[in-house]
Amino acid sequence: MPLLRIDVIEGRSEAELKELLDAIHCAMLAAFKVPEHDRYQIVHEHPAAEMRIEDTGLGIPRTERVVMVQVTTRPRSRFEKQNFYELLCQELLRRCEVKASDVVVQLRRMPMKTGLSDTAEPSSSPENFDPIRQM
Amino acid sequence: MPLLRIDVIEGRSEAELKELLDAIHCAMLAAFKVPEHDRYQIVHEHPAAEMRIEDTGLGIPRTERVVMVQVTTRPRSRFEKQNFYELLCQELLRRCEVKASDVVVQLRRMPMKTGLSDTAEPSSSPENFDPIRQM
Amino acid sequence: MPLLRIDVIEGRSEAELKELLDAIHCAMLAAFKVPEHDRYQIVHEHPAAEMRIEDTGLGIPRTERVVMVQVTTRPRSRFEKQNFYELLCQELLRRCEVKASDVVVQLRRMPMKTGLSDTAEPSSSPENFDPIRQM
Repeated sequence: MPLLRIDVIEGRSEAELKELLDAIHCAMLAAFKVPEHDRYQIVHEHPAAEMRIEDTGLGIPRTERVVMVQVTTRPRSRFEKQNFYELLCQELLRRCEVKASDVVVQLRRMPMKTGLSDTAEPSSSPENFDPIRQM
Repeated sequence: MPLLRIDVIEGRSEAELKELLDAIHCAMLAAFKVPEHDRYQIVHEHPAAEMRIEDTGLGIPRTERVVMVQVTTRPRSRFEKQNFYELLCQELLRRCEVKASDVVVQLRRMPMKTGLSDTAEPSSSPENFDPIRQM
Repeated sequence: MPLLRIDVIEGRSEAELKELLDAIHCAMLAAFKVPEHDRYQIVHEHPAAEMRIEDTGLGIPRTERVVMVQVTTRPRSRFEKQNFYELLCQELLRRCEVKASDVVVQLRRMPMKTGLSDTAEPSSSPENFDPIRQM
């Protein structure tokens, strides 16, 4: 159960937001091989003044279409992470007209052994805390 | 000082939000034995389109009452975590009519030795950085 | 590339928000020696009912000017962290009239080897995943 927080500047329609989330999930499915319904996405829309996203001095131009994706997941290999980033940029460009220069990704490892719980019957299903299944 | 981010779909009254936070804190007190005023809760309310919370394929029905609780805390035992989840579900059902199937929890360990600071007089009180006291 | 989430209670003007972000970045530059444009700040403004920030029983008075700063960064020394906190409190008081008693900081270590990616040309620049450069 990777959890994604997605920060954007306000102004997208509901349909555009849906397309954005679908594009991001598509990259997750392909790069991290999560099940189709292993989808936990939360969007935060901000006035432009609330997002100050610069470029570490790399000369990357940011626009108001900038998309910050923060992913909390179990440890992933360098290949998986790079693959995710590349697929993400491809999907966002193709489907949402967001350039790679507007894509910022932060991957956070979930270090806790039983980090995520998610079940309708917690008392009877302690194994739902298992991180292998959950993350 | 565990920090909680709580994501919900907009539509609750201020009184209902307060009850939600009280219910969550009640589970924290009982399961993690934190002091009564060790309470750091931040709510994010979202339009429904901003929260895409599925079920990893487990067949769990989500409604617009879904509550995502993200806890950053010092390491906790499996017992503490499971206990927290169970008490949380009980309290949310009893006090807020939120079913366990609408409760999603993510526990994140705070790995940093001096992870949290919180004091009115930082210069004179370096020990306030101590994670044992702070988390 | 440290990422900062800053939670405040709504009511500040855009100019006041800008000053707040500038003050926080100033403390980052001095304490963590990040490059000037290594600046990734996201603000969340909340109605007062959405932020329940108490004091762990330490008797610290909170007001509606409370500022919660959550920093995800590579590991930092105790000195760096304490220095950051002290400079942050100084800047926030001097420039934004926020007292140290209203400043709450959470530092989170980025444990992932290739934690952050941020580049306009990911395919050709795998080194942009390097955490030493990125965080």
